[in-house]
Amino acid sequence: MEREIFTDDHEMYRHTVREFLAREVIPHHARWEAERWIDRDVFRAAAKHGVYGLQIPEEYGGAGEPDYRYRMVAAEEAAKVHALSFALTISLQDDLVLHYLLDLTTDEQKRRWLPGFATGELIGALAMTEPGAGSDLRGIRTSARRDGDDWILNGQKTFISSGIMADVVIVAARTDPDAGSRGYTLFAVERDMAGFQRGRKLEKIGLPAQDTAELFFEDVRVPAANVLGEPGRGLQYLMSHLPRERLGVAVKAIANCRAVFDVTRDYCRQRHAFGNPIGDFQHVRFELAEMATEIDVAQAYVDRSVLAFNAGHLTPVDAAKGKWYVSELQKRIMDTCLQLHGGYGYMAEYPVARAFVDTRIQTIYGGTTAIMKEIIGRDLAR
Amino acid sequence: MEREIFTDDHEMYRHTVREFLAREVIPHHARWEAERWIDRDVFRAAAKHGVYGLQIPEEYGGAGEPDYRYRMVAAEEAAKVHALSFALTISLQDDLVLHYLLDLTTDEQKRRWLPGFATGELIGALAMTEPGAGSDLRGIRTSARRDGDDWILNGQKTFISSGIMADVVIVAARTDPDAGSRGYTLFAVERDMAGFQRGRKLEKIGLPAQDTAELFFEDVRVPAANVLGEPGRGLQYLMSHLPRERLGVAVKAIANCRAVFDVTRDYCRQRHAFGNPIGDFQHVRFELAEMATEIDVAQAYVDRSVLAFNAGHLTPVDAAKGKWYVSELQKRIMDTCLQLHGGYGYMAEYPVARAFVDTRIQTIYGGTTAIMKEIIGRDLAR
Amino acid sequence: MEREIFTDDHEMYRHTVREFLAREVIPHHARWEAERWIDRDVFRAAAKHGVYGLQIPEEYGGAGEPDYRYRMVAAEEAAKVHALSFALTISLQDDLVLHYLLDLTTDEQKRRWLPGFATGELIGALAMTEPGAGSDLRGIRTSARRDGDDWILNGQKTFISSGIMADVVIVAARTDPDAGSRGYTLFAVERDMAGFQRGRKLEKIGLPAQDTAELFFEDVRVPAANVLGEPGRGLQYLMSHLPRERLGVAVKAIANCRAVFDVTRDYCRQRHAFGNPIGDFQHVRFELAEMATEIDVAQAYVDRSVLAFNAGHLTPVDAAKGKWYVSELQKRIMDTCLQLHGGYGYMAEYPVARAFVDTRIQTIYGGTTAIMKEIIGRDLAR
Amino acid sequence: MEREIFTDDHEMYRHTVREFLAREVIPHHARWEAERWIDRDVFRAAAKHGVYGLQIPEEYGGAGEPDYRYRMVAAEEAAKVHALSFALTISLQDDLVLHYLLDLTTDEQKRRWLPGFATGELIGALAMTEPGAGSDLRGIRTSARRDGDDWILNGQKTFISSGIMADVVIVAARTDPDAGSRGYTLFAVERDMAGFQRGRKLEKIGLPAQDTAELFFEDVRVPAANVLGEPGRGLQYLMSHLPRERLGVAVKAIANCRAVFDVTRDYCRQRHAFGNPIGDFQHVRFELAEMATEIDVAQAYVDRSVLAFNAGHLTPVDAAKGKWYVSELQKRIMDTCLQLHGGYGYMAEYPVARAFVDTRIQTIYGGTTAIMKEIIGRDLAR
Repeated sequence: MEREIFTDDHEMYRHTVREFLAREVIPHHARWEAERWIDRDVFRAAAKHGVYGLQIPEEYGGAGEPDYRYRMVAAEEAAKVHALSFALTISLQDDLVLHYLLDLTTDEQKRRWLPGFATGELIGALAMTEPGAGSDLRGIRTSARRDGDDWILNGQKTFISSGIMADVVIVAARTDPDAGSRGYTLFAVERDMAGFQRGRKLEKIGLPAQDTAELFFEDVRVPAANVLGEPGRGLQYLMSHLPRERLGVAVKAIANCRAVFDVTRDYCRQRHAFGNPIGDFQHVRFELAEMATEIDVAQAYVDRSVLAFNAGHLTPVDAAKGKWYVSELQKRIMDTCLQLHGGYGYMAEYPVARAFVDTRIQTIYGGTTAIMKEIIGRDLAR
Repeated sequence: MEREIFTDDHEMYRHTVREFLAREVIPHHARWEAERWIDRDVFRAAAKHGVYGLQIPEEYGGAGEPDYRYRMVAAEEAAKVHALSFALTISLQDDLVLHYLLDLTTDEQKRRWLPGFATGELIGALAMTEPGAGSDLRGIRTSARRDGDDWILNGQKTFISSGIMADVVIVAARTDPDAGSRGYTLFAVERDMAGFQRGRKLEKIGLPAQDTAELFFEDVRVPAANVLGEPGRGLQYLMSHLPRERLGVAVKAIANCRAVFDVTRDYCRQRHAFGNPIGDFQHVRFELAEMATEIDVAQAYVDRSVLAFNAGHLTPVDAAKGKWYVSELQKRIMDTCLQLHGGYGYMAEYPVARAFVDTRIQTIYGGTTAIMKEIIGRDLAR
Repeated sequence: MEREIFTDDHEMYRHTVREFLAREVIPHHARWEAERWIDRDVFRAAAKHGVYGLQIPEEYGGAGEPDYRYRMVAAEEAAKVHALSFALTISLQDDLVLHYLLDLTTDEQKRRWLPGFATGELIGALAMTEPGAGSDLRGIRTSARRDGDDWILNGQKTFISSGIMADVVIVAARTDPDAGSRGYTLFAVERDMAGFQRGRKLEKIGLPAQDTAELFFEDVRVPAANVLGEPGRGLQYLMSHLPRERLGVAVKAIANCRAVFDVTRDYCRQRHAFGNPIGDFQHVRFELAEMATEIDVAQAYVDRSVLAFNAGHLTPVDAAKGKWYVSELQKRIMDTCLQLHGGYGYMAEYPVARAFVDTRIQTIYGGTTAIMKEIIGRDLAR
Repeated sequence: MEREIFTDDHEMYRHTVREFLAREVIPHHARWEAERWIDRDVFRAAAKHGVYGLQIPEEYGGAGEPDYRYRMVAAEEAAKVHALSFALTISLQDDLVLHYLLDLTTDEQKRRWLPGFATGELIGALAMTEPGAGSDLRGIRTSARRDGDDWILNGQKTFISSGIMADVVIVAARTDPDAGSRGYTLFAVERDMAGFQRGRKLEKIGLPAQDTAELFFEDVRVPAANVLGEPGRGLQYLMSHLPRERLGVAVKAIANCRAVFDVTRDYCRQRHAFGNPIGDFQHVRFELAEMATEIDVAQAYVDRSVLAFNAGHLTPVDAAKGKWYVSELQKRIMDTCLQLHGGYGYMAEYPVARAFVDTRIQTIYGGTTAIMKEIIGRDLAR
């Protein structure tokens, strides 16, 4: 169905993003995948063109533009060129890290970090997950204790996106074991702090260029000036930022579904078997029809979610619904599209093949499908 | 997700419909089901309260209100009280029959039929389907030949909703076997025309009160004044009215999903097993969460479809997407809700049990799921 | 795949059953459904022809034949003629009631009940389920207390198959509230015992001829001679008989799947649409192919289960696997077959339509799908 | 369910295979994956231990053992150690190549090739698929024309397993364009024939060590002594060998399902979240229960297929059923198991992650799921 959420401004922005990708990303993305690393240069270029960081206030070098539709446009365009490692990396800066830096920071902190973020020179990471805890935030064991004005941080994190390249890592740590959910604090750990060590860049089955790492903290001395928000409220901060992250997953998912569907539809029109375009087979036509429908249906929900988010009333439950539903749809769509490509669908040079592996993490990170269902189910039980 | 498509006017109308149902439908519906017949009185009451026929121009006794959201409100309220035989009967008058009478009629015809329709005294039916043809309109064998100013109609129809009670039956017949898709014409056959016979009221597995019948036409003499629109264009007329019918199926489907889901959620909160409300079991919570999500996602699409229909740009393909998707969802939701009721779900006295059988026809009539996928798939292949 | 589990003896028996059905069941089944009652005569005829009760020892009038493959043959033949109310009624006598009477009875009890059972004159029922408890046996509130040599039974049961027609009802009651799972006892309540009242014959959405009832026990004086097995061991007895009941559900399910699939395949070969047999459409061919495969795969498991049962090593977990899997498959198959019939699939006169509603209970009774998964899942967790 | 198809001999063989894998495969497999190449040495070791080639007659150095259960044992053990690149490579030698060399060869040809095959020194490949043709054998464009006693072969093949390492490649070519399905011939192209060129080793999303290649034939002169079977019958030979290949896919699929399921069940027992083993969550328990059931059900079918194959009566339709059903099941199981591992499921070091990508080709090669359904559907339509 024709979408109606974009204005001319969004379409102009789309044009900018598209040009940026054509010039700065497409020529390099295959190399980044092979080298398992995205050039840092591209962040500066991306920031310069407003591909991310738009929401940073003008006084810190941004555009002060909170409209999430710009994020959506960027996600759609990156999906169209199948630059998924890049897209995810950028999106996590924008959907995840930036909002801690905007929402929880003092003016002094803003002055320290936002200008670099706005130029693409400062890259951040959010370190929530730990080896033994997964989606269970209350299971966090990384801890920090007061020592004068500083805090001494110890622990270990894993699955940290941009963990190797990050200049500033927001680390969730337990600061008061007796305070229950009020005993966690967020710290901004900076590149050169003693005792902060990067572990392995983790080898995943997809998203090769995307940086995912283990991080280690051994007696890292973090000054009080690097505490984000109020001590003890870390868990609440994490919880309150999840809806935006989850909306981001849904937005990327539907954009990727549409992009890979389009590639597949074209493939089915062109590819011949048994003397006809394979799109002439009824089962192929039906699978395309099913996907086209499911994508349109999900898009209607995502579009409404984006507008609700802009209006400030996207609830955590509604974000959870979109997160699991669209990421699970994406999994089915990738699988069907791969299958429709036959043997070529298994060849890494085909976008559908890479998308299949790159996106398999979508139902897991940002809260697994099971966690989303718990959130929704508990709400229903009330 | 909070819906945003209704205004205060719609909510006032909702109140009217609700009162009407409480007074005129709920006290009788079980009896209608047992007697396999809906009292004709209720149509007059429904028309009087604007529960259907709203779109009839004021000069013929209606309100001249084309906004489909009023239909949606009526469908939602009827679904909430599980009066599915009644809801379908009314909806087919409004979504199907009325629009032929509005769109294809001369002023003289309008004067003949619309006032009665507006008061609920005239009930109509649309006779498309034939025993051997199903969804294949080109397979229509009922035929009419010119005889002076009249037409002589012969043939047989089946699965005709309101076929027994209808005062006017719109019959699609082949009038020129050599003219391909331009050789079909629509006739308004009236109650007392000689040679028009009602066959059996068909016994279905659900919707017992809803009237579905076979109709026979043996040398029925239909005057030219009863031809609808232009001779030869019948097939085009049928095709052009399908999107509204299909939107109607999707609207009823999502309304029914929500109503039965609500009943089921309440059941799961109250019903105990193994010492706890069954809603405390994680698998129950997950199934409720999945349904709540799928209903919200589909609702977003249906709501957008209704607005697009109002604006005159709901395409046949978009209507087909909604028709198959939401009716298939409905099937899954009914099945899951029945299952969550355990043995009670199989007992006819429970709304979920009746809804399960009443709604099983939704993926079939108005064009089966397979037909919908063909429509969508062919469009994609272009 | 060609099955290999039957010998010539089974095929001869198949012939007998088929003749019996043709003569004694098919001519009456539609009437039984309309009257919501199966003539008692047919039980005598069925018993006489060995259609049930084969396992009763010869001294009590049976054939002493424990081979479950005979039951399977009977189930398959009844499924082929779509006599599902009859099939279920007979199967519950044989798979459920009889085995309590064989396994738990004293010689005196055997002499009292088995000869009548063997001639079809005595019909039994098993009364486990209660209004508030469902699958949760520990939630049984019906209770019995000692009074001299007798027991005084009070309580209420629901969903009791053959509850109205039963001459002997095996009632599970709590006899020692402090003894935990060792505090339940089984009683044989006979037709004329004072205080034993039949409630409503429950109205279901399917299986109209099959008798399902509520039963009430108000100070029913049950003599000690009517206790089955040892007092206090009732729960163990119930648990130990569940695998046979569950195997019976799987056997009926797969037999019904095959029967309705065969009808549907033939329908698709004969029915034309758009100028061709609908079986020429690839999507129809694929749905038939999927069903044919799934039926064959499940049949392999059921056949192995039957042989394992005969050999005495079908575990409760393996029976649970077959019960949920095949009954859920059956649900999908009925649904797909109905859909392939188009509008005719919704007409009660078509076997597929009746099978759709008749079999919907299969995933519920005998332990719901959720209960089966719990049994299997707990075993895996060990 | 307890399986009953193996004898002590098979279990002894299992022990041998297990020891072989522990010594010759497990220590090297990760390196092979990283190097994208399996050491040729291991074929000699495997042949020596009877891990493949068992069916080669004793006079050519084999064991003359046709019982497919030995292949099944080998597949199961390789699956248990997650050595999927190795397992597939070996299986294709045994299930595919060897049987052309056994069934279609003259004594002279047997003497040339079988002894090398039996010692693991000669590796073969089957070159059916072409860039434009996929599963459509009639679309083969590689052609050969007579030239004296020789044939001149031209064309291109793709997706050829062991294409780079093969010493002998069986190439299907069109030899008489006017002879329809009787115009294809099989040629054994040997390593050093002029004009035979290996193309790229294709980069796949999984099975990195497994060799898949493009092959080019430019005026390759193939002597008549290298024709397999009769000229013109190539298509029939290909068709007749497909059931064994497809059985092989099903056997590997179910073995892999069980192996990855076992790993996942153990993971769920050990891994904690929210203070409990994740296996304590009902949804995890249910997913494990569902998988355990589906694996057991499919295993019953595969076991029966193996026995039918041994007995010479596994039909192409029955093989097609097993091929699509079990490979599609495998896809679902891999997906669910990956998901149950959370973030770890996406890490290449976890067996489940590798299995997810390694097995995605199973529904495609050997005839896609759609091709299988066509085969079955056409058979049903007869």
